[in-house]
Amino acid sequence: MAFDPATLRYDDRGLIPAIAQDHATGEVLMMAWMNAGAVAQTLATGRVTYWSRSRRAYWVKGESSGHVQRLVEMRVDCDRDCLLVLVEQTGPACHTNRRSCFYSALRDGAEVEILQPEA
Amino acid sequence: MAFDPATLRYDDRGLIPAIAQDHATGEVLMMAWMNAGAVAQTLATGRVTYWSRSRRAYWVKGESSGHVQRLVEMRVDCDRDCLLVLVEQTGPACHTNRRSCFYSALRDGAEVEILQPEA
Repeated sequence: MAFDPATLRYDDRGLIPAIAQDHATGEVLMMAWMNAGAVAQTLATGRVTYWSRSRRAYWVKGESSGHVQRLVEMRVDCDRDCLLVLVEQTGPACHTNRRSCFYSALRDGAEVEILQPEA
Repeated sequence: MAFDPATLRYDDRGLIPAIAQDHATGEVLMMAWMNAGAVAQTLATGRVTYWSRSRRAYWVKGESSGHVQRLVEMRVDCDRDCLLVLVEQTGPACHTNRRSCFYSALRDGAEVEILQPEA
């Protein structure tokens, strides 16, 4: 059946979490939020677009940094309240210039940095 | 430095999203929520434990189904408001008996099922 963003389950702010995963390596890059408009825009443009909770505005990933995410495939979970977006990531996904936002690992009870900022 | 679950950023319900990823294949299995107690319990026991929003109770993944998640590594994102848990998943992660909850893909504008329930 044709997909309608209105069929997703948004929270009381009208948002749904979206996990971005590198389509080639499987690396989980980041998690951010979309509203129905961002879902529709991502699908229409092929450029992954989130909703910035702090700026209260659409956030076309990489619009200012150039670190864009091209949509490869969007997936919906069983409860329809979470999205997985497979992407082709240009440059680092994280605003700290690291490939992934998940660069802190808990090992032996301590937090260790497992990814360095890119040059 | 030693890790303290209180240093994470929880939402106004005291929850943080946790993405479960198969540590061996990289497959994203599910997303659920933890509170500080669930984070601590997961780290202490090595059994991934969420907070069930509907039941308002701890949810030791697989406790009734046997489809447990053994914690391999927990990672924290740059904003400290999302977790990535690398797991060893026994059986299907999804309550629909599919390996992953993300079994619906949007292809050519329509939703298609890309994973079947396991036998």
